Amino acid sequence: MSPHALIPRLSRRQMLSVLATLPLVSGSLLHPNAASAQGTPSGNSLPSWNDGATKQSILEFVAAVTREGSSDFVPPAERIATFDNDGTLWVEQPRYTQLTFALDRVKAVAPLHPEWKDTQPFKAVLENDMGTLAKIGDQGLAELVLASHAGMTTDEFRKIVTDWLATARHPRFKRPYTELAYLPMVELLAYLRSNGFKTFIVSGGGIEFMRPWTERVYGVPPEQIVGSSIKTKFQMRDGRPELFRLAEMNFIDDKAGKPVGINEYIGRRPIAAFGNSDGDLEMLQWTTMAGGRRFGLIVHHTDGVREYAYDRDTPFGRLDKALDAAALNKWTVVDMKNDWKRVFAFE
Amino acid sequence: MSPHALIPRLSRRQMLSVLATLPLVSGSLLHPNAASAQGTPSGNSLPSWNDGATKQSILEFVAAVTREGSSDFVPPAERIATFDNDGTLWVEQPRYTQLTFALDRVKAVAPLHPEWKDTQPFKAVLENDMGTLAKIGDQGLAELVLASHAGMTTDEFRKIVTDWLATARHPRFKRPYTELAYLPMVELLAYLRSNGFKTFIVSGGGIEFMRPWTERVYGVPPEQIVGSSIKTKFQMRDGRPELFRLAEMNFIDDKAGKPVGINEYIGRRPIAAFGNSDGDLEMLQWTTMAGGRRFGLIVHHTDGVREYAYDRDTPFGRLDKALDAAALNKWTVVDMKNDWKRVFAFE
Repeated sequence: MSPHALIPRLSRRQMLSVLATLPLVSGSLLHPNAASAQGTPSGNSLPSWNDGATKQSILEFVAAVTREGSSDFVPPAERIATFDNDGTLWVEQPRYTQLTFALDRVKAVAPLHPEWKDTQPFKAVLENDMGTLAKIGDQGLAELVLASHAGMTTDEFRKIVTDWLATARHPRFKRPYTELAYLPMVELLAYLRSNGFKTFIVSGGGIEFMRPWTERVYGVPPEQIVGSSIKTKFQMRDGRPELFRLAEMNFIDDKAGKPVGINEYIGRRPIAAFGNSDGDLEMLQWTTMAGGRRFGLIVHHTDGVREYAYDRDTPFGRLDKALDAAALNKWTVVDMKNDWKRVFAFE
Repeated sequence: MSPHALIPRLSRRQMLSVLATLPLVSGSLLHPNAASAQGTPSGNSLPSWNDGATKQSILEFVAAVTREGSSDFVPPAERIATFDNDGTLWVEQPRYTQLTFALDRVKAVAPLHPEWKDTQPFKAVLENDMGTLAKIGDQGLAELVLASHAGMTTDEFRKIVTDWLATARHPRFKRPYTELAYLPMVELLAYLRSNGFKTFIVSGGGIEFMRPWTERVYGVPPEQIVGSSIKTKFQMRDGRPELFRLAEMNFIDDKAGKPVGINEYIGRRPIAAFGNSDGDLEMLQWTTMAGGRRFGLIVHHTDGVREYAYDRDTPFGRLDKALDAAALNKWTVVDMKNDWKRVFAFE
């Protein structure tokens, strides 16, 4: 039995508890020209998108808000676009990448915690006892999360995430998780930037789990990431300042938390928002239900062959209320199977 | 007796409770090219700085980290510079501007709260009863702060701050507070940006009290402001999404909170930090006590004629431990009287 027997027992909110923070980005990790290295499309270049109404809606929106003199014109400083991460920019099945990280991490540090052999919920993780894990509840899950994400400095946690990503492989695609970014979305990010947009990630995932790699993979720098976090504490140790990660949640950036996080971190209301699940509903409402030309988009996972097909009935990335809201609010819904020429760069 | 009879009773931390958030920045407030409108100095252009060791230390640092091939070279993406606001970028005497705002605000909304006439601490504010106000303690002060900063939407609060700044005048200079930015520091911000730096404000002040005007005054956009905040709540009202400001502190961005805020909001460690008080000590330590070429600077208020002269003995912007630390850590200390040719643009 694999760890994702856990899935049916974990609510989206529980999953989010897994998602904490990671430290400053080191220079060596980041190509300073990550954005341009991705290739900056100009004009209508979204090569991995099939022609049709979906692509057209994107091009028309961008043309409208960038045309000087147009009543829809938005000055560059206010061209804020926010993107969910899991399921919108990269794969979130068969379970959130960060949950896999948390379970792996518990196993990796178990030798330092001999008491875990006899202490639940750690014992169950170490023994792959999914029957017991399925019954640990919120409290047990919180213990797993904090054990895997807290108790070290921000610098140390960044290295832990970076090292894990370097070796971990997706169970189906057998590739590093960072290769499972959706190519059409990476193109879309770059296309928006080439039209004066500032692109942000606004994810239920841990802010410090994302920061080490988002610039390289998406062209989005650490200071443009909004996510869930645990608290940190500043301290001097041996005469050197450090930030220590505490076993205490700080902020959960999901559902109604997304507009709150956008306001707190960005301080401007986006004019375009991109998501794929009910966790993105309030971000899409906050973005689009305002005056002026606005754009909302939902990635609908309809391609069970090249990726996964799911919507209303899945524990990861459930798309139910937000799909109904998309019709009401005229948000663009991407039909992955038909709208995307390619899903991944490695295809 | 004026409201600043309050001063001796309020600790820096208490003051900070005053400092909460303000909403999204409206397009009309912001010149999209605020930064370049300030004038982008090139080379050694810091015209309001006198020549000497202070100016020289800035120029040498910038030259070192921007010289390709130099062992001190820092790629543009990592050229993060953080600035305190009160006392570093604008005047903080005879009391923090935001405290004046809070007291004015209590008086302004008193007609909607007839019960305040008989309820402390509001009664004391309305009657200018500084004797009583001096004894209200933390709890009373917190009530004043939350009464003046919470209980409205983020959009409404932005308008309140904007309207107040349009009419409020500094008691000594008889000018709008936004004209009390230090010209040499505005030049320094622009000089760093013209050398590839990304400039951030990291202030104990309220994040939403700053965002409506920092782009216009400093060239620093809302998404590059870190500050203290109260909690907000997303809600739909009459079918429109809004963020409602709650009477609950969220984050205090001062002292050891500053490196925490930098990590949480920016996610990179700065290579240069600028402050003026003990509230900036940990930010300066976090920034400079790391590997590589770093720069720390403290604005020392030595000019009682053109501005104010104060350091170790003042309730606002106390500079004591950080002044000692500056000598130990070789941070640049600006002698305002001798290093600055002009203090304000209006001189």
